[in-house]
Amino acid sequence: MTEESCQFCKIVNGENDANIIYEDEKTIAFMDIKPVNDGHTLVVTKNHYMNIYDIPEDEICYLYRTVKKMAVAVKKGVQAEGISVTQHNEKAAHQQVLHIHVHVIPRYQGQRFPRPEELSLANSERLKETAEKIRKYV
Amino acid sequence: MTEESCQFCKIVNGENDANIIYEDEKTIAFMDIKPVNDGHTLVVTKNHYMNIYDIPEDEICYLYRTVKKMAVAVKKGVQAEGISVTQHNEKAAHQQVLHIHVHVIPRYQGQRFPRPEELSLANSERLKETAEKIRKYV
Repeated sequence: MTEESCQFCKIVNGENDANIIYEDEKTIAFMDIKPVNDGHTLVVTKNHYMNIYDIPEDEICYLYRTVKKMAVAVKKGVQAEGISVTQHNEKAAHQQVLHIHVHVIPRYQGQRFPRPEELSLANSERLKETAEKIRKYV
Repeated sequence: MTEESCQFCKIVNGENDANIIYEDEKTIAFMDIKPVNDGHTLVVTKNHYMNIYDIPEDEICYLYRTVKKMAVAVKKGVQAEGISVTQHNEKAAHQQVLHIHVHVIPRYQGQRFPRPEELSLANSERLKETAEKIRKYV
C-alpha cells in the first residue's frame, strides 16, 4: 500500500536515499535530515497511512515496537541523557509529511526544545556517521 | 505491579482522584491537570514501568492502541484541528512522573507549543466538563 507522491513511501521502496538504521517486515527507521540533535530518528510503517486516526490497531503495535527498539539504540548510540518520542497529526500540529511517522529524539539536560522553524538540514556525512553509531545497538 | 509512592499508580488503584475518560484491563486514560489545551489527556499502563526502555513489547502495544482511541476521541470531543502525541523519558526530556505516560494533545492552527514552565493547573470544573465531552466519543 503506497502513495506515489509520498516521500516516505519512496524511502520504503528504495526510490529515495535515506540513512536506514533498522528495517523489518512492517516498519523502517532512518535518520531525520533536519534533526533536533544528532541521532534524531524517524520510524514509519511500510504501509502508507496518513496519521494516527487511520492507522489500524495492529499496525500501531508494530510501529511502536520498533520505536521502543530505536529509543534504546539511539540513546546508546549518541549517549543521550533522555529520549522524547513525538508524533504529530495534521497541519495544525506541524505534520509535514502526510505518512504517519514517529520522531525519536535525543535530549540533554538544560537544552530547550527548538521550534520547527529553527531546524536546518544536517550535513550528510555527519548523518551517515551517526547512523553507523546507532546501528551498533540495534 | 505498582510502586507505592507513584502518583499514577495511585490513580490506577483508585487512591487518587482523576477525571478518567477510558479504562481497560491494561491501560487507563485521564485528563492532564496542567493541560496545554482543553482536552489534553494522559494514557498510562496499569502496570508500573518507568519509561520506554523498560516497558515490555506487548505492553507498548496495549498502550498505543489506547492512545489511538484517545486521539480520535479527544479530536472529536474538543474539535481539535490536530493532535500531537508525545512521550518523554528521563529528566533531560522533562519526564516529571516516573511512570510511563503518553500525552494526547489537541492542537490548533497558528498556536505555538508552550514550554513546560508556562503550564498551570486547570480549573477542576472545567476539567470535569471537558472529560464528559470526550467520553461521548470513546
